[in-house]
Amino acid sequence: MTQINAEEIKRISDKNMDLFYDYLRLESVSAQGRQINQTAKAVQALIENIGGESEVLELKGAHPVVYGFFEAGQAGDSDKTLLFYDHYDVQPEDPLDEWNTEPFEPTIKDGILYARGVSDNKANFMARINAIEAYKNTEEGLPVNVKFFVEGEEEIGSPHVNDYLKAYSNLFAADVCIWESGSKDSKERLGISAGIKGIAYYEARVTSADIDMHSSLAAIADNSAWRLVQALASMRNAKNEITVDGFYDMMTAPTELEKNVLAEMPFDPNASKQTYGLKHPLITDQLPYSPEEALVFYPTLTISGLLSGYTGPGAKTILPRQAMAKIDVRLVPGYEPDKVTELLRQHLDKHGFEDVELNLITSVMPFRTNLEDPFVKTVIDSAKQVYGEDKVVLEPNSAGTGPMYGFGKYLNVPILGSGTEWEKSGAHAPNENIRLADFYQGVEHMVVLLDSYKHS
Amino acid sequence: MTQINAEEIKRISDKNMDLFYDYLRLESVSAQGRQINQTAKAVQALIENIGGESEVLELKGAHPVVYGFFEAGQAGDSDKTLLFYDHYDVQPEDPLDEWNTEPFEPTIKDGILYARGVSDNKANFMARINAIEAYKNTEEGLPVNVKFFVEGEEEIGSPHVNDYLKAYSNLFAADVCIWESGSKDSKERLGISAGIKGIAYYEARVTSADIDMHSSLAAIADNSAWRLVQALASMRNAKNEITVDGFYDMMTAPTELEKNVLAEMPFDPNASKQTYGLKHPLITDQLPYSPEEALVFYPTLTISGLLSGYTGPGAKTILPRQAMAKIDVRLVPGYEPDKVTELLRQHLDKHGFEDVELNLITSVMPFRTNLEDPFVKTVIDSAKQVYGEDKVVLEPNSAGTGPMYGFGKYLNVPILGSGTEWEKSGAHAPNENIRLADFYQGVEHMVVLLDSYKHS
Repeated sequence: MTQINAEEIKRISDKNMDLFYDYLRLESVSAQGRQINQTAKAVQALIENIGGESEVLELKGAHPVVYGFFEAGQAGDSDKTLLFYDHYDVQPEDPLDEWNTEPFEPTIKDGILYARGVSDNKANFMARINAIEAYKNTEEGLPVNVKFFVEGEEEIGSPHVNDYLKAYSNLFAADVCIWESGSKDSKERLGISAGIKGIAYYEARVTSADIDMHSSLAAIADNSAWRLVQALASMRNAKNEITVDGFYDMMTAPTELEKNVLAEMPFDPNASKQTYGLKHPLITDQLPYSPEEALVFYPTLTISGLLSGYTGPGAKTILPRQAMAKIDVRLVPGYEPDKVTELLRQHLDKHGFEDVELNLITSVMPFRTNLEDPFVKTVIDSAKQVYGEDKVVLEPNSAGTGPMYGFGKYLNVPILGSGTEWEKSGAHAPNENIRLADFYQGVEHMVVLLDSYKHS
Repeated sequence: MTQINAEEIKRISDKNMDLFYDYLRLESVSAQGRQINQTAKAVQALIENIGGESEVLELKGAHPVVYGFFEAGQAGDSDKTLLFYDHYDVQPEDPLDEWNTEPFEPTIKDGILYARGVSDNKANFMARINAIEAYKNTEEGLPVNVKFFVEGEEEIGSPHVNDYLKAYSNLFAADVCIWESGSKDSKERLGISAGIKGIAYYEARVTSADIDMHSSLAAIADNSAWRLVQALASMRNAKNEITVDGFYDMMTAPTELEKNVLAEMPFDPNASKQTYGLKHPLITDQLPYSPEEALVFYPTLTISGLLSGYTGPGAKTILPRQAMAKIDVRLVPGYEPDKVTELLRQHLDKHGFEDVELNLITSVMPFRTNLEDPFVKTVIDSAKQVYGEDKVVLEPNSAGTGPMYGFGKYLNVPILGSGTEWEKSGAHAPNENIRLADFYQGVEHMVVLLDSYKHS
């Protein structure tokens, strides 16, 4: 057990608050390319400021990745290296008029710190910096080697993470990895994810004519909107099962351990219904698996957008020349975007929809840590020490997507998340925030985890 | 046979060209309420200018309708009254940058007169005025009584035509009616329609949540876009048959005469394919009736618009809270909009789509003149005199829609169209035009028709 107590953690965190505020003030909006290089240098300075080595790495056409390194202390275990994944970029701050404070002027009200990017993901990076600094004042020093991979394109889909990992696999070599985030639910339980779903996102398009026609011609001319609607409808049945041949065959069956972990995940279907005001029953009411299984183990096929013809008020009597759909497919282990594309294309062709163009816009591979890996227990046990025995929930993977795959492929590390968010953090939304108490606790978890990992 | 020759028709038409130009200069865009009252007064003046009686009628909340009356001459048949239907309103002129001339400054180039509204429908009104004036200089005078119904809301769906007809059914009482338009096809044949299709235009909407959600929740939450797509797809099969129970049962079976008339309608499927650049085979290739039958005798069910979720460039991973479709149903005799609404609603409910809202936005009843009516032969024969024996094509009704129904209901008249348009007139489009030669011929047809009607 580490000798660093909660008082010391608060002291260091408070001492570094000015540095944290300066970091939050940087408008590192990756989608708009704002203050990107400046923020990468600020990350480097935060690392070097507490005695770390750091380098700003650059690949052509990509935002920089910041490398950081801290060597284990005299009494530490220098054979073990833990890698932190974070990102210094943030979402755009709009809509501005829905903010109660200035997005890039960190403001504390009633124990809550508001700022764009504070929950996603600047506070987590800062918590890790604070935890490392806490060890500097101890006799033993840092328990294990620590590296950082801090990217600047997470909010735009991490298009170059794998390029960086491939180019710098030796530099980032590590044994285990702690991911950017982790959030407390409505019952104050910290969720720890051991993976993510992948994604294959498509634009589907049908063109039926060179120009929009008068709709009286619908008596004889085919209609792009009808073609697209019929093609889409052929891919999912009324019970919400995906009807693309071979689609479910790609699933890697969950292990017994994964099933057991899932069985212990708390799930309240009413929470989503209330939060989002759902008007329909959950689709899993008609599916042969539970909502928890759906969120963790099953792929999805979602229409994220539809556009064709006239969409304004009132009536316009046209036969639209073109129709478009955005299709979001979430992938679980066993799925590869290219294979999904192939199956969707085969399905469309087989059902007579050769005229439906299908273009893969973006894709991310799924990733799930082997839950047998001892690091899983290390992370969970250390979290329970900090948050409480019944206040930590492991999930085999989250329902969302992130760039984990390359870390597994190029660094071969188990990956688990831990973070300082809560259910009302509002990542990507106005009034993004964290609770200060969660921040201190997040620092503490990192302190305990580094020590636990040394002794594991 | 009238004694008015082509030379006299040209002389009068040319004499009135300044008046015609002034009429074309009026920016009577009904959708924008521009110069509406001013144009109604101009119509009244054009009628009074050649000795007609006229009145500008007004109903609350409606654009005015201009009434006109010319009494049969001494040698005329004062027991017969022919009503002309025209409209003085025009479509908006945008996109302005696609015009080669000023839309409201009539311009002649190479025998073609360009102006917004010239083909739809100001030239036809002017041709009728010129034809009446031509009779003023004859000994016999006007062959029959002539009335005008000139409305100002045709381009916004004629929402008050039936109100005016109901309120002024005595004033507009007539025996026969000539409709606003008629166009020459690519082989210089004038099309004469004896009816129109009706329309029932809907907005369908599904709401699945109060807010857009992250698409990772698609694992458990239903999706408005999927619901709408599945509901729409249930209404039409892969062969493009409408699968709504009872939908085709409403059709009034075409008479033998209607079938015979249809059999003589020339139809070139390649013309539409080329004009619009169709990418698919005609849908009638898979239907048990011909393209001509589809255009004239069959109803349609068209998706005119689709909107849901994210429709911009690239990817946005959302689960859309709402999805909307515009649905355009064209009606043939036997169909009533309210009955169509009832069948569509029943269909949705029966297939489990109670969650799909369906709102009727606008509707027009179908109308088809009884082809046995002797006026049909009068109009066709008089047209053949002017255009040539093999240059006139009768169609039982057009594939498009117009406000004929009220004229049939309140005035009980047979209705046929004749006009001065050609295949490149571009009604509603930039560079709207007519050929001057067609205009003189249109005047001539009206001259011959009035005389033929007297003697019929």
